[in-house]
Amino acid sequence: MRNFSETTITDAVLERIQDTGNPRIKQINEALVRHLHAFVREVRPTQKEWEQGIDFLTRTGHMCNDKRQEFILLSDTLGASMLVDVINHGAQKGVTETTVLGPFFVEAAPDKALGDDISGGMVGDPMIVTGSVSSPDGKPIANATIDVWHSDDDGYYDVQQLDKIGDLAMRARFHADQNGQFRFWSIKPAAYPVPHDGPTGEMLEAQGRHPWRPAHVHFMISAPGYEQLVTHVFVAGDKYLDSDVVFGVKDSLIREFVRHEPGQAPDGRTQNTPYYHLNYDFGLKPDKAASRAA
Amino acid sequence: MRNFSETTITDAVLERIQDTGNPRIKQINEALVRHLHAFVREVRPTQKEWEQGIDFLTRTGHMCNDKRQEFILLSDTLGASMLVDVINHGAQKGVTETTVLGPFFVEAAPDKALGDDISGGMVGDPMIVTGSVSSPDGKPIANATIDVWHSDDDGYYDVQQLDKIGDLAMRARFHADQNGQFRFWSIKPAAYPVPHDGPTGEMLEAQGRHPWRPAHVHFMISAPGYEQLVTHVFVAGDKYLDSDVVFGVKDSLIREFVRHEPGQAPDGRTQNTPYYHLNYDFGLKPDKAASRAA
Repeated sequence: MRNFSETTITDAVLERIQDTGNPRIKQINEALVRHLHAFVREVRPTQKEWEQGIDFLTRTGHMCNDKRQEFILLSDTLGASMLVDVINHGAQKGVTETTVLGPFFVEAAPDKALGDDISGGMVGDPMIVTGSVSSPDGKPIANATIDVWHSDDDGYYDVQQLDKIGDLAMRARFHADQNGQFRFWSIKPAAYPVPHDGPTGEMLEAQGRHPWRPAHVHFMISAPGYEQLVTHVFVAGDKYLDSDVVFGVKDSLIREFVRHEPGQAPDGRTQNTPYYHLNYDFGLKPDKAASRAA
Repeated sequence: MRNFSETTITDAVLERIQDTGNPRIKQINEALVRHLHAFVREVRPTQKEWEQGIDFLTRTGHMCNDKRQEFILLSDTLGASMLVDVINHGAQKGVTETTVLGPFFVEAAPDKALGDDISGGMVGDPMIVTGSVSSPDGKPIANATIDVWHSDDDGYYDVQQLDKIGDLAMRARFHADQNGQFRFWSIKPAAYPVPHDGPTGEMLEAQGRHPWRPAHVHFMISAPGYEQLVTHVFVAGDKYLDSDVVFGVKDSLIREFVRHEPGQAPDGRTQNTPYYHLNYDFGLKPDKAASRAA
């Protein structure tokens, strides 16, 4: 195979990968070649533009380390991550909708008891979060594992300022009680820009886009026999709900963070300053494998 | 914009980038979003497969340094580099065809005099290369700058074994004489596998492909008023001519490297051992900007 034209080279590459052993890898590779070539044929890059593309990808890779994942940020801001999300998670009655994991999840969040304050002393408006975890038919799921994490009042996560604050904060792992209920205290999160000092930031600037996400609290909820739920609850009224830079907002995930005057809080504690209350009742989807085994 | 479906998310991203200021960047970004989303919609990656894709790109970036360009290797082996080549360089009478630059070009090759031996003492079959540089109508281009580089008898370039050989070799910059002629001695290059100990190598193995390129000599030729020519001359009869891993072979770039018994070589030198002779006459394309200015 020699002397390829703009169209025969695509067939040549497809022919060359016919011996791909794994059928799924073959399917993905064939689609990659067809779509990549179609993109190049449409755009007709100059040699110089091709070099700029190679340089962009290289700098994106060099920006990735154990604290920063620039390729995830690129996938998020190009809408690819949420496209993968909707492909894998259709809406279903009684099941909470999903959204992106984001780059700030930490595997080993500190275990906390229900009712604990996880703010780690960060300054902000006090917030109590209450809620429940159930199956789609409303049956409480006792003891479900609940990871939560959120930004501070300035829009920064703990891991972005460990040098300053010294320890993880606004982040914890809880277990729901026997009735599937949970509650904890923290501070109300703020909207924030995704890190935009790298190639993704250059792209957003060239595209004339802002880098902001509306304020939200992340939840990751697991229980035996159910699919793991990865989602956020967004603060109603946030000015970025309709322009989230990663396209992650779903109406069912927006809740009023209700302001209360000083007084007795929902967990019985006496609160001497105004506070906010978020309640969200989560529904988990039964795991397919578990259903088959039952 | 919220609650995206598999199709509305693409429109949402396209709408979001409508304010891209530079029209060419806008065109490229719009095409990227459409083709990337079409690929994802066709392949329907699981969350796990998406993570594997992010990991593949990240490792490809981490493999890039000042001696290795893994994204170029990926572009080359997926046929994207040669697609960009054919888009930018259609065949034209009297103009030598182009092919990939490859990852082994070095900016500051040593200047050599016509007739010099550039083998640097590497062991192999002696080879004399002769040729000329002309405009499409056959007019000699005096003093054209000619960069040449090629592999050794084992298929390795100097830059892959600098620790062992200590200096650049089989690489030089010449200037054609007043009649556009050039000549130099070296050793006959061998076929070689592209570096395959990284993510690109994993991909080639999964695709059931070999990593080999047919033996060739690289040429990069420049002269005022002409487009720079980046090409190779391939050794006729090489077993990889029809399966070059980067799809770079064009028939017009294949030449017999003719074996000669000891005796007087084409440059008048007396050669005491058998040697090979390659002759190639190059045609350069007049530069558009220069033509307009003339």
